[in-house]
Amino acid sequence: MIKTDILIIGAGPTGLFTVFEAGLLKLKCHLIDALPQPGGQCSEIYPKKPIYDIPAFPEVLAGDLVDNLMKQIEPFQPGFTLGERAQTIEKLEDETFVVTTNKGTKHHAPVVAIAGGLGSFEPRKPPITGIADYEDKGVEYIIRDPELYRDKDVVIAGGGDSALDWSIFLTDVAKSVTLIHRRSEFRGALDSVEKVQELKDAGKITLITPADVVDVYGEDKVEGVSVKVGADVSNLTCDHFIPLFGLAPKLGPIADWGLEIEKNAIVVNNSLDYQTNIPGIYAIGDVNTYPGKLKLILCGFHEATLMCQSAYQRIFPDKRYVMKYTTVGGVEGFDGTKKEAPKAVVKAIE
Amino acid sequence: MIKTDILIIGAGPTGLFTVFEAGLLKLKCHLIDALPQPGGQCSEIYPKKPIYDIPAFPEVLAGDLVDNLMKQIEPFQPGFTLGERAQTIEKLEDETFVVTTNKGTKHHAPVVAIAGGLGSFEPRKPPITGIADYEDKGVEYIIRDPELYRDKDVVIAGGGDSALDWSIFLTDVAKSVTLIHRRSEFRGALDSVEKVQELKDAGKITLITPADVVDVYGEDKVEGVSVKVGADVSNLTCDHFIPLFGLAPKLGPIADWGLEIEKNAIVVNNSLDYQTNIPGIYAIGDVNTYPGKLKLILCGFHEATLMCQSAYQRIFPDKRYVMKYTTVGGVEGFDGTKKEAPKAVVKAIE
Repeated sequence: MIKTDILIIGAGPTGLFTVFEAGLLKLKCHLIDALPQPGGQCSEIYPKKPIYDIPAFPEVLAGDLVDNLMKQIEPFQPGFTLGERAQTIEKLEDETFVVTTNKGTKHHAPVVAIAGGLGSFEPRKPPITGIADYEDKGVEYIIRDPELYRDKDVVIAGGGDSALDWSIFLTDVAKSVTLIHRRSEFRGALDSVEKVQELKDAGKITLITPADVVDVYGEDKVEGVSVKVGADVSNLTCDHFIPLFGLAPKLGPIADWGLEIEKNAIVVNNSLDYQTNIPGIYAIGDVNTYPGKLKLILCGFHEATLMCQSAYQRIFPDKRYVMKYTTVGGVEGFDGTKKEAPKAVVKAIE
Repeated sequence: MIKTDILIIGAGPTGLFTVFEAGLLKLKCHLIDALPQPGGQCSEIYPKKPIYDIPAFPEVLAGDLVDNLMKQIEPFQPGFTLGERAQTIEKLEDETFVVTTNKGTKHHAPVVAIAGGLGSFEPRKPPITGIADYEDKGVEYIIRDPELYRDKDVVIAGGGDSALDWSIFLTDVAKSVTLIHRRSEFRGALDSVEKVQELKDAGKITLITPADVVDVYGEDKVEGVSVKVGADVSNLTCDHFIPLFGLAPKLGPIADWGLEIEKNAIVVNNSLDYQTNIPGIYAIGDVNTYPGKLKLILCGFHEATLMCQSAYQRIFPDKRYVMKYTTVGGVEGFDGTKKEAPKAVVKAIE
């Protein structure tokens, strides 16, 4: 059982910044995220895209924003449960919570902060009968560890950035890379499209278009796929089939936690502390809703900050926290580090 | 009469970021500030101090934060009325406002956003009878333009960073610099104290400590000051006397605008749009108060953002603004500039 002060569901920008604000209050955090790395959408969907509306960043790449946040929270040593989805929640008699993931990992905390963004990103799956039987046996919808494909025959399906970029990346890893798309046109960064053209011309990527993968076969694991080109269907042996048809956010199991939901978002008390209808469970960032809500990263930062004050009161009902400005009091990490402004000296001039 | 969409009172970080969020909504802004430059406290009080709690900045100097914000809002061409304090407000029959400064400059806007921080910074003045008669006639409490002191005899009083740093700076500008402090010990950055010691040793700063300036004299303007050392009082001729005893924030004339005030802050509706009790007047950042309020820069950014949406509705009651993410829609400046993410291409691979 993982124990922490604030259990954060969702490791996007809002969830990450919560670690910092909690840390200033000496509260420890642990984050759960369905994606294999922190950063949420910013890392998974658009790491190379510029964001223009983060205060004091005239322009910042989404991936760099996440890197900065990771650096900022480092002194507060957050824990991570990645690649797992928060599945169930149980309120114990002492008003604390146990959250269990789809893989059975259990987390225990007095406060739960849902920073789930638009929900957990679930892959769009191709309509192939029986494909579920091959999941994690050669069929993967998200590439978690490229080493899995070392010296393997890999078939990738899709026509967007993910399919292009992973096809490029895996030519250096896999024995063979075949890219299958239902059209001849791909949609993505110009660089990526041109690079795939090059690799195809060099014989490093086999391209089959316009075509569809219509079946997966194999005894205990994937041994090949059936590919339909025009009216013809033929078999193609491979070790892995990776359909990259995009990720769609789904509120998922959280929708069944008894929280008040409105238009796929969790209703919170924005006039105080972004708490949900269940005391001790907060919702911050894009996942929540209230009158005038804007789904902006900067709003999530503010919500996280106010929420941490309320969490502190819940955890220490008898203490009163007196806020100190970081410019004055500095930042004391749990790792023993201390950052602070150079102190003024009092010194005679003679 | 200066006309704008949102008249912002206070050019600190919150006021500056308001220009950006308003700009995304195609609303123009004009800012009034009592200080001679934008940035509020960050520029005037602690430009060289690090701030640790701005999201995604593990550390940023207050002055750099302001520079970044100025760069971010540049495309939206804000207007500035600096070195003047917002004095009176008048609501016209058409529900728009006219704000007049202490120097008589008039501003007209349908929306007023008070982002006044802790108030307008007023200098602490020395208790010298009749000093007010010499203000702007050789007595200055804030240095607005160092060129004013070119080849002049200058007396600075004070023992903190401002007194130290301006003494250092003016040695290159003024004919002579005399620094007077009631103690021998100065309180400031080690660098500054050491530099003053050096300049004193080199004969470039005359130091008189422990001592007090007890009088100012001159016909139409400052011709000298009386300095008390121990029991002795002697005259010292000079062209300028600059007491730098710190700035104290005062809510000032805004307190008389009919706004609901609680503990020196303006009460706002935090459950919606940070509007005050007077429709059309908003208060954002450190100047406002509501349940759970934290006086943090990042909270001001959020408040500014939500406030702009409400301002838009007030100005265009019949339009409905549909938010576009800057990552998707880019940022179109009023100066004709456009920043946007590289577009995806749709391209065949043959």
